Amino acid sequence: MAVKYELIKTCAQTGARLGRLHTPHGIIDTPTFMPVGTQASVKGMSPEELKSLGAQIILSNTYHLFLRPGHELVKEAGGLHKFMNWERPILTDSGGFQVFSLSEMRKITEQGVEFRSHINGDKLSLTPESATQVQNALGADIMMAFDECPPYPAEYEYVKQSTERTSRWAERCLKAHGRPHDQALFAIVQGGMHKDLRKQSALDLTSLDFPGYAMGGLSVGEPKPLMYEMLEETIHLLPSDKPRYLMGVGSPDALLDGSIRGVDMFDCVLPTRIARNGTLMTSQGRMVVRNAKYANDFGPLDPECTCYACQNYSRAYIRHLIKADEMFGLRLTTIHNLHFLVKLMEQVREAIREDRLGSFRDEFFEKYGMAHNDSGF
Amino acid sequence: MAVKYELIKTCAQTGARLGRLHTPHGIIDTPTFMPVGTQASVKGMSPEELKSLGAQIILSNTYHLFLRPGHELVKEAGGLHKFMNWERPILTDSGGFQVFSLSEMRKITEQGVEFRSHINGDKLSLTPESATQVQNALGADIMMAFDECPPYPAEYEYVKQSTERTSRWAERCLKAHGRPHDQALFAIVQGGMHKDLRKQSALDLTSLDFPGYAMGGLSVGEPKPLMYEMLEETIHLLPSDKPRYLMGVGSPDALLDGSIRGVDMFDCVLPTRIARNGTLMTSQGRMVVRNAKYANDFGPLDPECTCYACQNYSRAYIRHLIKADEMFGLRLTTIHNLHFLVKLMEQVREAIREDRLGSFRDEFFEKYGMAHNDSGF
Ligand SMILES: [Zn+2]
Ligand SMILES: [Zn+2]
Repeated sequence: MAVKYELIKTCAQTGARLGRLHTPHGIIDTPTFMPVGTQASVKGMSPEELKSLGAQIILSNTYHLFLRPGHELVKEAGGLHKFMNWERPILTDSGGFQVFSLSEMRKITEQGVEFRSHINGDKLSLTPESATQVQNALGADIMMAFDECPPYPAEYEYVKQSTERTSRWAERCLKAHGRPHDQALFAIVQGGMHKDLRKQSALDLTSLDFPGYAMGGLSVGEPKPLMYEMLEETIHLLPSDKPRYLMGVGSPDALLDGSIRGVDMFDCVLPTRIARNGTLMTSQGRMVVRNAKYANDFGPLDPECTCYACQNYSRAYIRHLIKADEMFGLRLTTIHNLHFLVKLMEQVREAIREDRLGSFRDEFFEKYGMAHNDSGF
Repeated sequence: MAVKYELIKTCAQTGARLGRLHTPHGIIDTPTFMPVGTQASVKGMSPEELKSLGAQIILSNTYHLFLRPGHELVKEAGGLHKFMNWERPILTDSGGFQVFSLSEMRKITEQGVEFRSHINGDKLSLTPESATQVQNALGADIMMAFDECPPYPAEYEYVKQSTERTSRWAERCLKAHGRPHDQALFAIVQGGMHKDLRKQSALDLTSLDFPGYAMGGLSVGEPKPLMYEMLEETIHLLPSDKPRYLMGVGSPDALLDGSIRGVDMFDCVLPTRIARNGTLMTSQGRMVVRNAKYANDFGPLDPECTCYACQNYSRAYIRHLIKADEMFGLRLTTIHNLHFLVKLMEQVREAIREDRLGSFRDEFFEKYGMAHNDSGF
């Protein structure tokens, strides 16, 4: 097996899992947050910066790399790790989510999906087999089975058809997988917001013995309580000796509430995307450094933060850079937000170790300025 | 005196000057190239990256900082060095060049210039006194006297009026200068492409005993032979115990041909601007990494280069990043181009030390793919 999950302990207060994921490119402490490097680069960041803020694994997008520069080129370069100079673990997603959210004129059949590139309109297709081959060429430590992520809301009958097809596709991915010795293929549980479909999906996929399982089709616009309901409905059906990955989730509250429900892995573009707009996650809550009130504020973004941005630059300077469209401003806000989430997950792991994740969550929500049932970040 | 020029030796082959400029924030080896940080940031670069590629001094633009974030704010932050976290020397330009090239509805009088901000149309003015006060607030090691840079081409009579006014303005700047103990005010020789006006300007300004002299109004569209003719006409009139700065020049050939003519300091946005378009200066000449022929080229940008980009990334990866509009691509090409020019100036200084700058120039031109009389980069 390419990856192996080691459960260290569960939090007596919450049931959250402290673990380690062993991969061909090193060990990942879980629960973990994975920064997103869509096009073989975490926007604005160098690999050294990512390492220095503590990132242990990054995610890259199969759909984007398939379109540009092309998986064959990445393979020729020696694989994605070498191409982008990142020697730590990488996860590539299935391409399914982007095909359904970005491409045009898509047509889904049992065979796969035909679509037009959002870059140049080229007619392309992805099937379970080709998406797996693309990911084999990229060479990430963890790859994802090609799936359909149904929209929210969606009719029961549509989601049922889609979810059953995703399970059949998962089996085809498993068969097409050419590098099981050094790449782990995870399956994605779908089922929309329907408990019985979630359950069926989980049962279908766990019968196939994947080395890890993701929960997809969540955080797609539904209310957070509904997301947690679906998460709870699904996660207890997943094997406890395999890692569990909640896709597309990266707000601080959801990292805490997801960990409490037994999630081991998260990814989201949120911290990097809002950073580029000058919005920060801080120990005191959300902060928009573009705001006029920070023009003459010579303190750091977050007085409790030890990141490069907070150690060396003021809110006033960073606000100036963002307003003046200076790239360096985006670097600084991105470093800070990623550092914030990576450190948050370190605190989560420490709290699990000490059986106090529930208390830590409540303190964090209080300080961050969220009522206990708040959503958003 | 805030800065002091120390002449170490002249090149027996060319007359080029090897020197050191002592400033409140450290020593600059000359001839030197100054990267440009227009808005208190060299686009995309961190101060650590600039230091690690060997930059000893950077330039920032008074006009831009006056507009945004405002010099009073920078002063309140503790000055430009502290604001942008750069503890090495800084030079601020006079604001004149940008007022004349960027702003709208400008009106020049003996008093100064009225103009509208290119950002928001605000009606503003700069005078020799206020431009000096702005630069005193910014606190750079070297500041420039407020000048008019006449367009090219321009009528003799217009250039004459303008040049005489620039000399009167320089005297007013000197009087308004509030920090001569820790900021050096340089004067700017103008005179367009007219030898007699250049001469008169140099004589007027050197009679006022500034700690350094710049040659402005060159590299504004005129043919390079004409630029060198004007440079030669001016530079021998400048005191040999003061630094000589050729403004707005940064192509490799002009750095060599300028050094040979006795220039000590250069600045230009060229290396950073072309980097953002994927154009590189390399030991083998100019290279456009966006070109299709580099798609599968897994070698470094420049096989002879020791910069961070060339040590860690391939042409194929950098081409991908540039084509995909990834910020990290711009960081890598910018690092490379600045490193290239900084190392070129190290080679120039070594060649002066060994009395062989003329031979070095010829070898460089040959290798770079320029005929001896070529212009451009
Ligand atoms: Zn920070
Ligand atoms: Zn290089």
